[in-house]
Amino acid sequence: MTEFFDRHRPMLEAAVEALRARGFWTPFPEVPSGKFYGESAREEGEAAFAAMQGRPFDLPGHPESRRLGAEASPFGPVPGITYPAADVPALIAAAQAAAPALAAATPEARVGVCMEILTRLNRISFLLGHATMHTTGQAFAMAFQAGGPHAQDRGLEAVAMAWDEMTRFARQAVWEKPQGKAAPIVMEKHWTLVPAGVALTIGCNTFPTWNSYPGIFASLATGNPVIVKPHPAAILPLALTVRIAREVLAEAGLPADAVLLAVDAPGAEITKDLATDPAVRLIDYTGSTAFGGWLRANARQAQVFTEEAGVNTVTIAATDDFAGMCANLAFSLSLYSGQMCTAPQNLYIPEGGIETDQGHKSFDDVAQGIAGAIDALLADPARAAGICGAIANPATQARVAAARAMGRVIRDSAPVGEGRTASPLLLAVDAGDPAAEAECFGPVAFLVATKDADAGIALAAGLAARKGAITAALHDTDEARIARAVAAFARAGVNLSINLTGNIFVNQSAAFSDFHVTGANPAGNASLTDTAFVATRFRRAMWRRPAAA
Amino acid sequence: MTEFFDRHRPMLEAAVEALRARGFWTPFPEVPSGKFYGESAREEGEAAFAAMQGRPFDLPGHPESRRLGAEASPFGPVPGITYPAADVPALIAAAQAAAPALAAATPEARVGVCMEILTRLNRISFLLGHATMHTTGQAFAMAFQAGGPHAQDRGLEAVAMAWDEMTRFARQAVWEKPQGKAAPIVMEKHWTLVPAGVALTIGCNTFPTWNSYPGIFASLATGNPVIVKPHPAAILPLALTVRIAREVLAEAGLPADAVLLAVDAPGAEITKDLATDPAVRLIDYTGSTAFGGWLRANARQAQVFTEEAGVNTVTIAATDDFAGMCANLAFSLSLYSGQMCTAPQNLYIPEGGIETDQGHKSFDDVAQGIAGAIDALLADPARAAGICGAIANPATQARVAAARAMGRVIRDSAPVGEGRTASPLLLAVDAGDPAAEAECFGPVAFLVATKDADAGIALAAGLAARKGAITAALHDTDEARIARAVAAFARAGVNLSINLTGNIFVNQSAAFSDFHVTGANPAGNASLTDTAFVATRFRRAMWRRPAAA
Repeated sequence: MTEFFDRHRPMLEAAVEALRARGFWTPFPEVPSGKFYGESAREEGEAAFAAMQGRPFDLPGHPESRRLGAEASPFGPVPGITYPAADVPALIAAAQAAAPALAAATPEARVGVCMEILTRLNRISFLLGHATMHTTGQAFAMAFQAGGPHAQDRGLEAVAMAWDEMTRFARQAVWEKPQGKAAPIVMEKHWTLVPAGVALTIGCNTFPTWNSYPGIFASLATGNPVIVKPHPAAILPLALTVRIAREVLAEAGLPADAVLLAVDAPGAEITKDLATDPAVRLIDYTGSTAFGGWLRANARQAQVFTEEAGVNTVTIAATDDFAGMCANLAFSLSLYSGQMCTAPQNLYIPEGGIETDQGHKSFDDVAQGIAGAIDALLADPARAAGICGAIANPATQARVAAARAMGRVIRDSAPVGEGRTASPLLLAVDAGDPAAEAECFGPVAFLVATKDADAGIALAAGLAARKGAITAALHDTDEARIARAVAAFARAGVNLSINLTGNIFVNQSAAFSDFHVTGANPAGNASLTDTAFVATRFRRAMWRRPAAA
Repeated sequence: MTEFFDRHRPMLEAAVEALRARGFWTPFPEVPSGKFYGESAREEGEAAFAAMQGRPFDLPGHPESRRLGAEASPFGPVPGITYPAADVPALIAAAQAAAPALAAATPEARVGVCMEILTRLNRISFLLGHATMHTTGQAFAMAFQAGGPHAQDRGLEAVAMAWDEMTRFARQAVWEKPQGKAAPIVMEKHWTLVPAGVALTIGCNTFPTWNSYPGIFASLATGNPVIVKPHPAAILPLALTVRIAREVLAEAGLPADAVLLAVDAPGAEITKDLATDPAVRLIDYTGSTAFGGWLRANARQAQVFTEEAGVNTVTIAATDDFAGMCANLAFSLSLYSGQMCTAPQNLYIPEGGIETDQGHKSFDDVAQGIAGAIDALLADPARAAGICGAIANPATQARVAAARAMGRVIRDSAPVGEGRTASPLLLAVDAGDPAAEAECFGPVAFLVATKDADAGIALAAGLAARKGAITAALHDTDEARIARAVAAFARAGVNLSINLTGNIFVNQSAAFSDFHVTGANPAGNASLTDTAFVATRFRRAMWRRPAAA
């Protein structure tokens, strides 16, 4: 069954080439427009989402012993959807039963299935946008992109990387060893790809699809059945994904149970039981460092790929576009209320101020410049709601309230739009303040006064190496200092963005170009999607015999 | 400093192409002949080895707090060489001091250095042969090959794989994102390779260079300083390697301490202290499953790449060349007295016998056929010594003695040649006998009576999956059953050789073609050399900024 593969082969080849070249590329338009998705797509997505609310979610043939589901939208309306739930042994058994057929399928068959799944997911991007919005708190425009096309990009990236790796070496070869004057020894050799075992993907609350697709598709493409364990507060986007995956698998003559949904209830999570099952050999995890550490310590039978927490920084050394810098940082701090793993938290500013195109700016001038830019950005309530979205987890809102006492308030947090919301809280602290030494997840930023710009670079890079960081940013005009910063942040294993202004933000990680998370500091041990992310998900076993004469 | 790279580029490109195509290829002749190595090479190697005995080994500039060394040749003469030894903190500090310059070197510079090291090692292959012979007990012909050119092949394979992976993606890119009717966003992006940290290679007694070179060269090429920890009984081959590596590094303007020798004394090993040092982030280990498990449990700060123990099998179902099969197995069982990680241990034979070109053969006929072929192979004492070599570890000889009680003796073990020697012991046991369920390292083979051939395949594949195996062999004439065996052994993650006769043996693993150890069963978690073996030894950190207009 390689019809899907043949259909999608041009897209696959373009994706592989994009991975090599690392320029801009995507097959999935990020603009939520009828021009790309069909004139009725917007209405159909809304209608489909509305029709799902308050009803049981249908997942034909899926193991089911009961119904679970208690998602509540951060914006207020309650989805009220229930999902089929099964206990851990039933899920493991179903995955294991699907494994042999999936392993026996050719790379072409599996990659074709993965690409067909992604293509069908793309078609329901509006529905995925609503599902993502009402589970994560992202405003719709962002939920459409991050839950739809951008997540699909990340999935396709993993599929392309897996394909490239599965086909990197010859599948068969004739090995002919000279024997001096005697006849050569001639052997035929064949390699079988051996999948690692059952894969588990543990989703997060804030980016249920974007952060889960790389693991799901890397494992599935390389022949491992995948159990998808959503965060109990963000099930729907992954349930929709699992449903389409199962449909496509069945159409390809492969077991639908090669992709399973593991729904649990808050307070009765089954994650630990799943993760430590001996059959589970691959785990992809996005979430807290504490649980990441638990997985590494306890799920020792599995390879564990993680994206954990860190402290992202901006070092402000100088700028030739003060207004542009402040506006750019305002957006980065406001977008989804700081709930992106790529959002900056600590801003290092020299205590003596910086040089700018508007002349010298003191520490407080810079702080007020950023605060003012946030105020301007969020002045229009509708626009503010469209940028900040809502707060996914009530604990985050409580953290914002508690953080007010942690420094000098430069800009206070305030509600923005409907539901559980909070605009950025800006606090000024001194270098070395312990408040700025740990992740404070949510719309809280620390403006840290440093001796000078080089001290800021050292603090930011040192913190990334010690506590982890997914992004770092720098504003500077001194090329020699920029070169020092490039070296320091590379040593700390963190991706650095320099002098961003305009419509490009440090929060943004572009599929096929940026390696998201480096794997080289405590913010995660894996990178989406490099070779290491796919290469150990399968092995090669050879058989060889004398070649027929 | 890319002179070395330019010089060796054609060899590098040929090696990368060989890895893809997986046919026969090597730049290092395996025949110990003056034709390839120079007319005086043999004598020079002997003289150099003789001159080293009883003297301190010179390693200029190496950390040294005392001298250690107590190697004793399994053949009798005692090398009596002492080596510079340093304590763990001094070795770690030296490695860390070398790390920044090694990390800052280009991939070209590091790969050039690695290839120059290998080329110079090739030139001293006769000396390496003697050094290997008198530390491992391999007969000279084998010691020359396995300690010299074959080990160099394995090192080059790792370098080529590392090079291919380091250059797999663009090192810089222009990323241009369309913005509808507005001007596109144009970013320049650059990636820095970030090495993992200090690397530790833990050598074994039987193949000090062959098993250590992949890890040493994979780590060094990707920018990680390497501490080489030889087995206390097999230091010299790795000391020679470290000396050449340090010379080449210095000539290239890189720190000699990027490769260090960690010598210790039997009973006072420093391996655990080295392996658990927080600076050590990569460990390559060859040895027992017990210590492999200890490393995985305790050296949790490091990535651990292992080749451990397993039980290799031969399943005998049928043959159309009974004499050729018996002769081939006789050689595989006798070579280096079963001390190869690829040597077969369990031979599964149907209790009702097999069909052959010589008619039906009973279980005992097959057993006697193999025993007789061993006797014939080893009839000439000089030839026998040249095949069996000596026993590296006295414990192995004790194990052979104890094994006699574990089954019905088909062929007894006996001394062969000078020194600590033992020819193969063949024992008949029933299927399910616990004696044949674990590794019995050395010249001991169990002939296991099975219900039929398919039962033999099931037992052999099941044991590989449970206990690990590096090789499996099958003799059969039934293509349908061969296909079943291919599938069964692939599921068990073990490489399978079918119907070997003549001058090709299941023990042989060919660089650039065979992936040695699959990583897919308990015999090891890594494969020499696949992508996974190199891909996590470094990471990529990006810096990006708006492209200059």
